[in-house]
Amino acid sequence: MPNPTAAMLVIGDEILSGRTRDTNSYHLAGELTRVGIDLAEIRVVPDDHEVIVDALDSLRSAYTHVFTSGGIGPTHDDITADAVAAAFGVGIDVRDDAREVLEAALARRGRTVTADQLRMARIPDGATLIINDLSGAPGFTVGNVHVMAGVPSIFVAMVATVLPTLETGAPRLSREVRFEVGEGRIATPLRELAEEMTAVTIGSYPFRDGEVHGTNIVVRGTDPVMVDEAVARLEAIRTAIGTAST
Amino acid sequence: MPNPTAAMLVIGDEILSGRTRDTNSYHLAGELTRVGIDLAEIRVVPDDHEVIVDALDSLRSAYTHVFTSGGIGPTHDDITADAVAAAFGVGIDVRDDAREVLEAALARRGRTVTADQLRMARIPDGATLIINDLSGAPGFTVGNVHVMAGVPSIFVAMVATVLPTLETGAPRLSREVRFEVGEGRIATPLRELAEEMTAVTIGSYPFRDGEVHGTNIVVRGTDPVMVDEAVARLEAIRTAIGTAST
Repeated sequence: MPNPTAAMLVIGDEILSGRTRDTNSYHLAGELTRVGIDLAEIRVVPDDHEVIVDALDSLRSAYTHVFTSGGIGPTHDDITADAVAAAFGVGIDVRDDAREVLEAALARRGRTVTADQLRMARIPDGATLIINDLSGAPGFTVGNVHVMAGVPSIFVAMVATVLPTLETGAPRLSREVRFEVGEGRIATPLRELAEEMTAVTIGSYPFRDGEVHGTNIVVRGTDPVMVDEAVARLEAIRTAIGTAST
Repeated sequence: MPNPTAAMLVIGDEILSGRTRDTNSYHLAGELTRVGIDLAEIRVVPDDHEVIVDALDSLRSAYTHVFTSGGIGPTHDDITADAVAAAFGVGIDVRDDAREVLEAALARRGRTVTADQLRMARIPDGATLIINDLSGAPGFTVGNVHVMAGVPSIFVAMVATVLPTLETGAPRLSREVRFEVGEGRIATPLRELAEEMTAVTIGSYPFRDGEVHGTNIVVRGTDPVMVDEAVARLEAIRTAIGTAST
């Protein structure tokens, strides 16, 4: 059975303006690969209601899961929860369980909840909360959309809460073989190997290390036997090149 | 007149698997903001011909410019040039001027061009080359799509070649005001200011600095007078909060 698929939707003007570097996608990509969910697309969109709704509609119908980051705080530019409610055509309001989580977190810092902070307890109807230890503002899941914070430490905590609740697939194994020659000198045997071994994917990534123009070849697949076989074949290619050039 | 818009299309399995951190989007975002082209979307897609063609079609009709990174090397997983040709419905073949650039660059390293390396001189019909000093393999522009390398240093060099050739808009100014209180305590005056001053956008970004839960407020706009005015209003809000809390 093929692995479940996923998209990441990053919401925030600050990424598109170059103010902030998105680190959440990279974290999610690694975690999903580890558990066997195939991340198939990442999209970054601005703080714009219609654009967010359109992106949610397009991604949630195309993939098993959609993970979002950003836009769930208490200020006017936090519009993700409303966009998710609109995309699913459900209502949204302050929910008692979310309010209790928020009140408890603020009480630990000696504060009460302001009217603005209460916006963070607005949850689309039918959602499941994503509780985390770092922030009193919960994320939530509606259908196949998992809505999480943009602040990286809180995003990480929320991913750790959500992932164990999902059906996962076969972890995608990845092994790397380093060639100290440029891509152009190994492209032909690589292409032949990739055409023959369709159970794995073979990626070619050039690098420079001082004077060396080299290439890292990455084998990915879910079947350990096939991945090992591909690595052995690559090592044989490397030996043949080394012999040829001496 | 509104600024030109742009999308970034990052092509590569290595980003989606979490092997490689995409740094090209962040670089492009900063450069576009500086010259007054509004980056409206970033999309990351895998090394899959149909997916790349679909993304190109959707993005090039929605935005003034599309910038791509990745997939223009000599190996079997470098399929961007063919996807661009397919998206525009034009032919693609080795082109003499691209071959000359490639041969000259390899000659400087004492090498001749292999059949595989010659793949990097395959250019869609009607394209303009994007020459760079770091790599002999040129990028190219077809219509409103600018096709560049994935290797960050080469991507940076290609962006530096392309941007001066484009019509640009009003640079988007950005100024930041730091509040040493959480978002929840300033959300109301912020919302009122954002509703009143529609010539700027006001973003709110929480941070933690040791024990301080603070908020950076970012004002963005193209009119320096309005940006200054918004910053002055934010500083007045900050003073009022400081007075209220003493």
